[in-house]
Amino acid sequence: MSSNSSHQNWANEIEYLLRDINKVLRRAGRSSLGAFSITPPQFDALLLLRDHIELTIGDLSTKMYLAYSTTTDLVDRMERNQLVMRVRDLNDRRIVRLHMLERGHHIIQEATYARQTYLATVLQDVDEDMLQQWKEMLTVLHTRIV
Amino acid sequence: MSSNSSHQNWANEIEYLLRDINKVLRRAGRSSLGAFSITPPQFDALLLLRDHIELTIGDLSTKMYLAYSTTTDLVDRMERNQLVMRVRDLNDRRIVRLHMLERGHHIIQEATYARQTYLATVLQDVDEDMLQQWKEMLTVLHTRIV
Repeated sequence: MSSNSSHQNWANEIEYLLRDINKVLRRAGRSSLGAFSITPPQFDALLLLRDHIELTIGDLSTKMYLAYSTTTDLVDRMERNQLVMRVRDLNDRRIVRLHMLERGHHIIQEATYARQTYLATVLQDVDEDMLQQWKEMLTVLHTRIV
Repeated sequence: MSSNSSHQNWANEIEYLLRDINKVLRRAGRSSLGAFSITPPQFDALLLLRDHIELTIGDLSTKMYLAYSTTTDLVDRMERNQLVMRVRDLNDRRIVRLHMLERGHHIIQEATYARQTYLATVLQDVDEDMLQQWKEMLTVLHTRIV
């Protein structure tokens, strides 16, 4: 087997493991959302609003691949849920931008805590030397990939 | 520092690395979708139809947290895109189920290839002993987490 195809095999196996591990962590994070009565699309919108400030409803609908009217309904529910507020652009008052509220940041944080707590439970009887090695390995992979 | 809070710190760091690595792989996978003119929500629906056979439009709308009408539009586009077909239930002809077509399976496979190929590029000059260790580490984590 050539080194290239062998590397591709390693990559395939590692990709599968990473994907499946992430699926479980994602579920752990999202399962914390019920306590806040927010749905996964609302959570996806929060993540977008965290990563891209000053989005308009049009921007959000493009990024979520949802119709404008569906996005408007979503934003209405998020506004009632005190996750975001509509803010008029100071320079051009025809433009309305979405501003994430403190409660939105808090919910993202809670979902991250839920993933971290779940992982800590999984790792609780792994010894620290091993965890150190795991972290180093993932740091190398992370540095290469980002 | 107690072992518990120390384990939580390891978990926090490892969770972040896994999440960020996955974000890049996810982007690599999704970037392959353009070639098939399918949108991320269509791809999300394909993954659900792969994991849960025999879904109705109602089931899909519940799982995607979309309104029934939005889901109907999505399925219409997916049908035109030859990703799915509507099939009447043999026992109860009032029920319509969604059946993923070969092209849908193919697109999921292509997105997986894109992730794997991207990862192989990132790993190309990592030596195989190291990759062996990485795979072993991730296998242990995977076994514990799933």
